[in-house]
Amino acid sequence: MSSFAPTSSDDSAGNDSKYRAFDAPGAEFFEGIGKIPLKKDAGADETMVFKTYEPEKEVMGRPMKDWLRFSVCFWHTFRGTGADPFGFPTLVRPWDDGSNSIANAKRRLRAGFEFFTKLGVPYWTFHDRDIAPEGATLAETNKNLDEIVDLAIELQNKTGVKLLWATCNLFAHQRYMNGAGSNPDAHIFAMAAAQVKKGLEVAKKMGAQNFVFWGGREGYHTILNTNVLTELNNLASFFRMAAEYKKKIGFTGTLLIEPKPKEPSKHQYDYDAMTVIGFLKHYGLDKDYKLNIEPNHTTLAGHGYEHDIVMSSAFGMLGSIDSNTGSPDLGWDTDQFPMDIKNTTMVMKTVLEQGGLSPGGLNFDCKVRRESTELRDMFISHIGAMDSFARGLLNAERILKEGVIAKQVKERYSSYESGIGKKITDGQTSFEELEKYILDNGSPTNVASGRQEHYESMLNHYV
Amino acid sequence: MSSFAPTSSDDSAGNDSKYRAFDAPGAEFFEGIGKIPLKKDAGADETMVFKTYEPEKEVMGRPMKDWLRFSVCFWHTFRGTGADPFGFPTLVRPWDDGSNSIANAKRRLRAGFEFFTKLGVPYWTFHDRDIAPEGATLAETNKNLDEIVDLAIELQNKTGVKLLWATCNLFAHQRYMNGAGSNPDAHIFAMAAAQVKKGLEVAKKMGAQNFVFWGGREGYHTILNTNVLTELNNLASFFRMAAEYKKKIGFTGTLLIEPKPKEPSKHQYDYDAMTVIGFLKHYGLDKDYKLNIEPNHTTLAGHGYEHDIVMSSAFGMLGSIDSNTGSPDLGWDTDQFPMDIKNTTMVMKTVLEQGGLSPGGLNFDCKVRRESTELRDMFISHIGAMDSFARGLLNAERILKEGVIAKQVKERYSSYESGIGKKITDGQTSFEELEKYILDNGSPTNVASGRQEHYESMLNHYV
Amino acid sequence: MSSFAPTSSDDSAGNDSKYRAFDAPGAEFFEGIGKIPLKKDAGADETMVFKTYEPEKEVMGRPMKDWLRFSVCFWHTFRGTGADPFGFPTLVRPWDDGSNSIANAKRRLRAGFEFFTKLGVPYWTFHDRDIAPEGATLAETNKNLDEIVDLAIELQNKTGVKLLWATCNLFAHQRYMNGAGSNPDAHIFAMAAAQVKKGLEVAKKMGAQNFVFWGGREGYHTILNTNVLTELNNLASFFRMAAEYKKKIGFTGTLLIEPKPKEPSKHQYDYDAMTVIGFLKHYGLDKDYKLNIEPNHTTLAGHGYEHDIVMSSAFGMLGSIDSNTGSPDLGWDTDQFPMDIKNTTMVMKTVLEQGGLSPGGLNFDCKVRRESTELRDMFISHIGAMDSFARGLLNAERILKEGVIAKQVKERYSSYESGIGKKITDGQTSFEELEKYILDNGSPTNVASGRQEHYESMLNHYV
Amino acid sequence: MSSFAPTSSDDSAGNDSKYRAFDAPGAEFFEGIGKIPLKKDAGADETMVFKTYEPEKEVMGRPMKDWLRFSVCFWHTFRGTGADPFGFPTLVRPWDDGSNSIANAKRRLRAGFEFFTKLGVPYWTFHDRDIAPEGATLAETNKNLDEIVDLAIELQNKTGVKLLWATCNLFAHQRYMNGAGSNPDAHIFAMAAAQVKKGLEVAKKMGAQNFVFWGGREGYHTILNTNVLTELNNLASFFRMAAEYKKKIGFTGTLLIEPKPKEPSKHQYDYDAMTVIGFLKHYGLDKDYKLNIEPNHTTLAGHGYEHDIVMSSAFGMLGSIDSNTGSPDLGWDTDQFPMDIKNTTMVMKTVLEQGGLSPGGLNFDCKVRRESTELRDMFISHIGAMDSFARGLLNAERILKEGVIAKQVKERYSSYESGIGKKITDGQTSFEELEKYILDNGSPTNVASGRQEHYESMLNHYV
Repeated sequence: MSSFAPTSSDDSAGNDSKYRAFDAPGAEFFEGIGKIPLKKDAGADETMVFKTYEPEKEVMGRPMKDWLRFSVCFWHTFRGTGADPFGFPTLVRPWDDGSNSIANAKRRLRAGFEFFTKLGVPYWTFHDRDIAPEGATLAETNKNLDEIVDLAIELQNKTGVKLLWATCNLFAHQRYMNGAGSNPDAHIFAMAAAQVKKGLEVAKKMGAQNFVFWGGREGYHTILNTNVLTELNNLASFFRMAAEYKKKIGFTGTLLIEPKPKEPSKHQYDYDAMTVIGFLKHYGLDKDYKLNIEPNHTTLAGHGYEHDIVMSSAFGMLGSIDSNTGSPDLGWDTDQFPMDIKNTTMVMKTVLEQGGLSPGGLNFDCKVRRESTELRDMFISHIGAMDSFARGLLNAERILKEGVIAKQVKERYSSYESGIGKKITDGQTSFEELEKYILDNGSPTNVASGRQEHYESMLNHYV
Repeated sequence: MSSFAPTSSDDSAGNDSKYRAFDAPGAEFFEGIGKIPLKKDAGADETMVFKTYEPEKEVMGRPMKDWLRFSVCFWHTFRGTGADPFGFPTLVRPWDDGSNSIANAKRRLRAGFEFFTKLGVPYWTFHDRDIAPEGATLAETNKNLDEIVDLAIELQNKTGVKLLWATCNLFAHQRYMNGAGSNPDAHIFAMAAAQVKKGLEVAKKMGAQNFVFWGGREGYHTILNTNVLTELNNLASFFRMAAEYKKKIGFTGTLLIEPKPKEPSKHQYDYDAMTVIGFLKHYGLDKDYKLNIEPNHTTLAGHGYEHDIVMSSAFGMLGSIDSNTGSPDLGWDTDQFPMDIKNTTMVMKTVLEQGGLSPGGLNFDCKVRRESTELRDMFISHIGAMDSFARGLLNAERILKEGVIAKQVKERYSSYESGIGKKITDGQTSFEELEKYILDNGSPTNVASGRQEHYESMLNHYV
Repeated sequence: MSSFAPTSSDDSAGNDSKYRAFDAPGAEFFEGIGKIPLKKDAGADETMVFKTYEPEKEVMGRPMKDWLRFSVCFWHTFRGTGADPFGFPTLVRPWDDGSNSIANAKRRLRAGFEFFTKLGVPYWTFHDRDIAPEGATLAETNKNLDEIVDLAIELQNKTGVKLLWATCNLFAHQRYMNGAGSNPDAHIFAMAAAQVKKGLEVAKKMGAQNFVFWGGREGYHTILNTNVLTELNNLASFFRMAAEYKKKIGFTGTLLIEPKPKEPSKHQYDYDAMTVIGFLKHYGLDKDYKLNIEPNHTTLAGHGYEHDIVMSSAFGMLGSIDSNTGSPDLGWDTDQFPMDIKNTTMVMKTVLEQGGLSPGGLNFDCKVRRESTELRDMFISHIGAMDSFARGLLNAERILKEGVIAKQVKERYSSYESGIGKKITDGQTSFEELEKYILDNGSPTNVASGRQEHYESMLNHYV
Repeated sequence: MSSFAPTSSDDSAGNDSKYRAFDAPGAEFFEGIGKIPLKKDAGADETMVFKTYEPEKEVMGRPMKDWLRFSVCFWHTFRGTGADPFGFPTLVRPWDDGSNSIANAKRRLRAGFEFFTKLGVPYWTFHDRDIAPEGATLAETNKNLDEIVDLAIELQNKTGVKLLWATCNLFAHQRYMNGAGSNPDAHIFAMAAAQVKKGLEVAKKMGAQNFVFWGGREGYHTILNTNVLTELNNLASFFRMAAEYKKKIGFTGTLLIEPKPKEPSKHQYDYDAMTVIGFLKHYGLDKDYKLNIEPNHTTLAGHGYEHDIVMSSAFGMLGSIDSNTGSPDLGWDTDQFPMDIKNTTMVMKTVLEQGGLSPGGLNFDCKVRRESTELRDMFISHIGAMDSFARGLLNAERILKEGVIAKQVKERYSSYESGIGKKITDGQTSFEELEKYILDNGSPTNVASGRQEHYESMLNHYV
C-alpha cells in the first residue's frame, strides 16, 4: 500500500452543476467504455481488451479468477491526483470537484464501482480516510465513515464486487507524522487505537476478507531523538490489542502486516518479510498476523523481486500480495503496474505451490503515471497488469504440471533424505558424530554444480 | 569487459602427462559434446540445444547471424577460475595445469577454438595478457605474445572464427593499480603506451574488426590524493596517440571506449555513455572513437538496462555491445549471461533501428557463476544467452515491421514538423517570437497523455 | 534546487483577520526571535546562536561572508508545507492563509525578508512561481509577478539582502509534466520560452547575480515513447535562445544549469556534472553556461558527496552550489541541511582553491524535516548549516595555509614536470617514442603507494 | 568479517634464504618502526603517531582501552594480497614467500605479533584457515592447525596479546561454494560441522573470548534452484549443535553471528541484525547467540551506519563490533578503515550506554587499499582508525556526562510514564478504553516537533 495524495482541506459541497450531473440515477462515469472484452487475437495497439485473462478458464483445477483474486485499490485509482513532490495534480477526473464533501465522496465511490465492474475485478480495497472525509471530531469522522460505508455495502451488493481488505490510514494526517502505534505521544497512540477499532468494525460490517496494517510512519527519521525499544514495545502492544479486539467482535478476516524498508520514514521498523516475522515471533504475535507483500517494497529493501513472497510463503506467513513493481534504477516507491512476465510467473509459481492466496488476493497497489492523464489510461494499466498476471499464471501452471524444475530441485537436496543427512534433518546427530563421519568417509570431493544458467534457461522455456 | 581472474605466478611448464594428452594432434577438449544443434521442439530441461537461434534464417533482409554477430570472450570463459574476493577457484578445466607457461596458453587457445566452433559463434575477443604470459621484459612479453598470435591466426584460418576485437589489459598488473593513461607516474604511462602500441599491431595482424579500451583503473580511490584534471588531460593524450598510431600502421578497425562507473575504482572517469561522449567532444576525439556498451555497467551507473545503448546510438556513437546483465539488487559487476527477453528485445530494436552493429557485435562478456562448475555449463550459459538474443531479435523484427510503436512515437512529436515547431527545430526563432506566439495563441491547455502503460502493453504484445 | 510543494488552487483573498494582522506596518512574523547572535561558548542545547560563523572574520584575506555567500531559498523555507507523497501538510505558518492570493504572497515575502535579516544571510533565491501566483493568462501571470517583484525590490533595498539567483519553475505545472524545453509539444516549448524570457527580465531588474535552470522534467519516464535525440536537440535550442536573450537585454548574471540524475523523471538529461559539461560542449554552449552543483543530486547519481563540485571546478565550470545533503541510505532527494563537517571542509577546500564562488554562492536548498514544525526549527536548521560551513571554511583555511596535503599531491605527479613526462603533458611524443623509452629504461618497478589512509588521517587532523 | 584473499595452491617450503632470514631468533619484521608513541601535538603529516588514543586514560571510570578493546584481524592484515576481481596481488610482504607451507605460516604469525605489539592493541582475531594451511585430509588439516596454535599460544603468552575471537572459514574452499550449514549436500554439512568442532576446541585452548560465525555462502544465488526453508532449518540445526558442543567442552566464550545482506551470495540469510534476531527467536537460539555487527554490512543492507549497532543493543544482543566502513557510493564490501568521527561517536555512545562491549571488542575488519603498498601503510591505517575511535569515545563521554541529549529524548516519551500512557506500556488497556479516552479528551492537537536539526546541531556540538 502506498501514497494517498494530499488533497485540499476545502470541504465545501461542490455544487457546480458539471459535477452534479454525475449524481443522477444511472449516470455513467466512464462514457464510451463498456465491459472490457476478451479478444485473443487483438493487435499491438489494442490495449483496451484482454488477450489472456479469462476468469472462468480452468487452471490446475480451479477457475483462473480464484488463483488471481484481483483487486483494485481505491486510493491510487480514485484519490490519486498525479501530484508529486515536484508537481501539481495532473489527473483531473470529470466527476471529482476536488472537495472533501460527502457528495464528492459518494460520486467517487460510484465511479469506483462502475470501474471495478467494467474492468471485471472481483475485489476492491480502501483506507478509511480515502472513502470518507475526516470530521472535526472522532465522532463526526466516524459518522461520515458510516454514511459512506452504507453506500459501499449497497454498491457491493448490487455489483457483486467484494472487499478484499480494508485498512486505516495512520500516516497522512499531521498527527501521525512521528508514528501511530510507535508515536512518542500516548495521546496519539490512543487516537490511532480508536481509529483502528472503528476500522475493524467497518471491515466486519462490509465483509472484508482481511485487514491490513501499513506503518509508513512507524520508524524513525533520526536515531538521535528516538528510543527504538520503547517504540517497538508500544507498537507490539498496539498489534496485540488489535488482535484482541478483532476476536472480541468476531471479525474473521486475516490480519496482515505490510513490510516496507523506508519512505516516507528514513527507517521503517517492518523493513522486510524476515524482519516482520522476527518481530511477530519476538512478541508472540505470529499466530495472529500474516504478511501482505508488496514487491516494490521488497526491491527497495535490496532483495530480488520475488524474494519476500518466497520467504513469507516458506514460513507459512504469506497472506496477500500488493501486486505492483518499481523501476530497478529508482530508489523510491513508484507503484507501477506490474508488466514483466518473468516476475508474474515467479509470483504465481509460489502462489500455486502454496495452494492459493485465499482469503488474500492480488491487489493492484499501483498508480498510473502522472503523465497518463486520460480516463482510458486507468483501464489500460489495469488490463495490462491483469493480462501479465494471467500469462504468469499459465506459465506457472506449465512449470508445475511438467514438474521438471521441481524434480531437479528435489534431487539437489536428496542427500538429506537418508543416512547422515536424515539424522541432520531430524536433529538426531551431533558435532562429534559428524566429525566421525568425515574421518570415516573423507572430505567431500564431488561438489555438485549449482547450474544457475541451466535453471534460468529452463525458466525461459516457459516464459 | 571485465575481470580477468588473478592466476598463479608460477610459470613452470606443466609437464604432467594428464595435461600433455591435450597436446596430441586431434585431441578433443570437450569430449562428448558435438556441434550444438537446433531443436525447436526441445523440452524444458534440454538446455544443450538451440531452440530459436538459426544463423542463416532471414530477418529484415539479412541472415540472423549478421544482426547478432555473437562473440565469445576469452578472459571469462578460458581464464576465469571462479575465484571471488571470498573464495578460491572453483572452475577446474581438465586441460589447464594452472601454470603461466606457453604450453598451457596454447592448450587453452585450442580449447577455445574448439568451443567457439562447437557453439557456432563467428567471433571471439581477448585481452593481450589473457592469451599469452607476460615475460620479464617488454621484449620477452611481446615475443610470447607473437608466438601465441601465430597459433591464433592459424586457428582462425582453420575454423573461420574471426576476431571481433582485441584489447590490452591495463588493469590487472600491479603497475597499473593507480591507472594506466591516467597514472601519476609518467614511466607507467609510457609502459601502457608501449603495450597498446603492440596491441594495435597485433590487432591489425589478426584482422580484428575493432579495438577496445576499458579503463578500470582510470579513475580515483580517494579524491584527496588526486589531481583529476591532470589525469584527464593525460588520458586524452593517451587516446590521441593511440588514434594516431592506428592511422600510421593502417589498422582499419574501430577504436572503442567502454564506459563503467566504478569498480574496481571508486570513481571511473568514463562513468557512462554521455560522460564519455562529453569527454571525447571536449578533447576533439569524437571522430576517432565510438563506444562499446556493457549493460551491466549501465545499470551500475544508475540507468535502465538499455539506456546507454539508446543514448550512444542516438548520438551515432554505438560501436559494439558487451552483452551481459547484472542483478538489479546487487551493487557490483556480476557479468551474468543475459537471459531476459524484454531486455534483449529492447537492445535488438535499437540495433535494427540503426541498421546493425557491424563492424561491432554482441560480445558475451559474461562468466558462468562460480557454482556452475561443469564443462557443459559453459555451453548451456552461452546457448541460453544466444537464444535469448535470437528471441529478442525476432520480437524486434515484428515491432519494426508492424511499425505501430514507431508511428505513435512519431505522432507524439509531430508539432515540430510545421509552424512554430519547425522554426524551433530549425533554430529560426527566438524567445521574443515564442512569447508572442503564446500571447497570440494562449497557454497550452491540451496536454497529451504520455500513455506509458499503453506503450508497455504494446511492448508486452511482442515479448 | 528542488521541490516546490503543491498548494491549493484556491485563490480567494484570505480575509481572515488572524492573517491580516501581519499586514500591519511593522508587523513581526517571528515574534520573540531577534537577530541571531554569536555566542562562541554556548552549550550543546543552545542551537539558536552561532558558535563559529562570524561574517566579518578574516579568512585567507577576505571576510568569511565573502567565501560563504550564504543564501536562503524561498521555495522550501516559505512555500514548503511539509506535505510528502504519503502525508498532508504539517508546517503551518501563522501568516500564511493557504491561499494563492497576492495578499498572501506579500505576507510570505515580508516574512521572508524578516527571516533573512534576523538570520543574517546576505542573499536569497526564488522561482518565479514561488513568489507570485500564476494567473489565467500569461499576461495576468506576468502582471502578478511584476507586482510582487516591486515589493521584493523594495524589501531588498530596505534590508540590503540581495538576489543570488532567480529561476523559473518549469516543472510543477501540469503542462510541463512531459518536459519544458524537451517537451514533445512545440506549444509547451513556446510557453516555457515565454516564461524564461520574463524570468530573465525580472532577474535583471532585481539585480540577480545568476540565473539557474533546473530541468526536473527534462528527461523521460519510459524510453518507449521517447525520441531522446529530438528532445536533446530542442533542449539545446532552448538554452541557446536563453543565452541570446540574456545578451540582448544586457543581463550580466551567470547562466547556470543544475544537474540531477533522476526524480521526478526516471532519467534526467542533465544527469551529473560531466554529462552536462559534455552536453554543453557538444552543442557549443560551454561559454554561455556554468554549473550549479547540488551535492544531494551528486550522491543520487552514485558519486561521492564532493565529486561534482571537484569535477566542475577542475573544468572551470563551477558557478554556484546548492548546499544541502541527503542520507546515504535513501534513494531520493531529501534536501537536508548540511551538517557534516568533513563534507563542508571538502567543499570549502575546493572553493578556496578556485579563489571563491562569486558571483555564485552557497544557497541552502534545504527544507526542515516535515516533523520539525516550530518556527524556531527554521532558524535552528539554517544556523546549524551555516556553522557547519563556517567550521568547514576554517578547516580548509588551515589545510591550504599549511599546504601539506597540496605539496604531497604535487609530488605525486612530479614525473610529468620534466623528461618524458613533460613531453606527454605537452603532447610532444608518440607511442613509438614511448615504447623506445620502455625498451631503453625497462618496465617500471617502483610503483608508488597511493597512501589513501595517510591522506585520510591528514584530513582528520584538520576536521 | 570479510574476504580472505585466495592464495597459491603451492605448498612448497619456501626455502629462499631471503625469507629464511626472518626465521632467525629475534628477527625483526618491521624494521625501523618502533612502538607507536603518543604525540598529542603532532603535525598533519605525522601519521605514524597517536594523537588521541591513550590506553590508560580514564573515561567514565575505566581506562580507555577497556571501552575500546581494539583487535587486529589476521586475514586482511597478514593474508591480504591486494588482489581484487580485476587485478593481481599488489601487497608484497618481505617475509611471505607466497607458499602455503607451515614455515611461511609461522613467519606470518610472528610478524603478526610484532605488529600487534608495536601498534599496542590488546587483541587479535583469525579464521582457522588464515593461520594454518589446509591438508589433504581433515586429520592432516587439524594437525597443521595444532602446530600453529601452539606457536600462537606461545606468542600470546609472550606478548600479552589475547584472542578476541576465533572463527572458521566456511566460505573460501570450493566445497563451500553452495553453503556450509545450508549446503544442499549433507556430506558438506558434516564437513563444516567437523571443522567448527575443531574450531571451538582451538578457541577454548587459546582463551578466545568469543567465537564468530559469518555465513558468506549461507544464502542463494538463484532462488530457482533453492529450497529456502530446508536450508534455514538445516542452518538452525548447525547452530544448535554448535551451542551444544560449546557447552559440552566448557568453552565459555560468547557465540556470535555476523549479519551481512549479500556478497558473495546474492542473498544471505542473515541479512541484517533484525533478520538474525528473528531467526534466533524462531529457532529458540536467542539465549545462545549474540551478534557481531559490521557497519559496512549494515550500510550494504540499506541502513544508516549505526543502525544495526543501535538495534542489536536495544534488544540486548550486541556482542561485538567489526569496526570498519564502506563508501556510501559503492555497492560492495570495501572494508575500509573507519575514519569518520561522527560515526565513531555514535558507535561509542551506544557502547557506553550499554556499559561496554566486553567480552566483545572493536575488531578492525579492515584492509589497506590495494594501492597502499608500503609496510607503514599497515600502521598508518590502524593508527588513524584507533585515533578516530578514541576521539569518538571522548565525544561520547562528553555527551553522556552532560546528559543533555538523553534528557531531551526522555522528555519526548514522558507521556508514557503516567496515566493512559503508562497503561499502554504496562499492557493494561484495550482499544475500547483508548477510544473512550479520545472521546473524552478529544483528538490530539498539540503535535510536538521532532526537532531533527536541533538534535543534529547538538551532536555537532560534541563532534
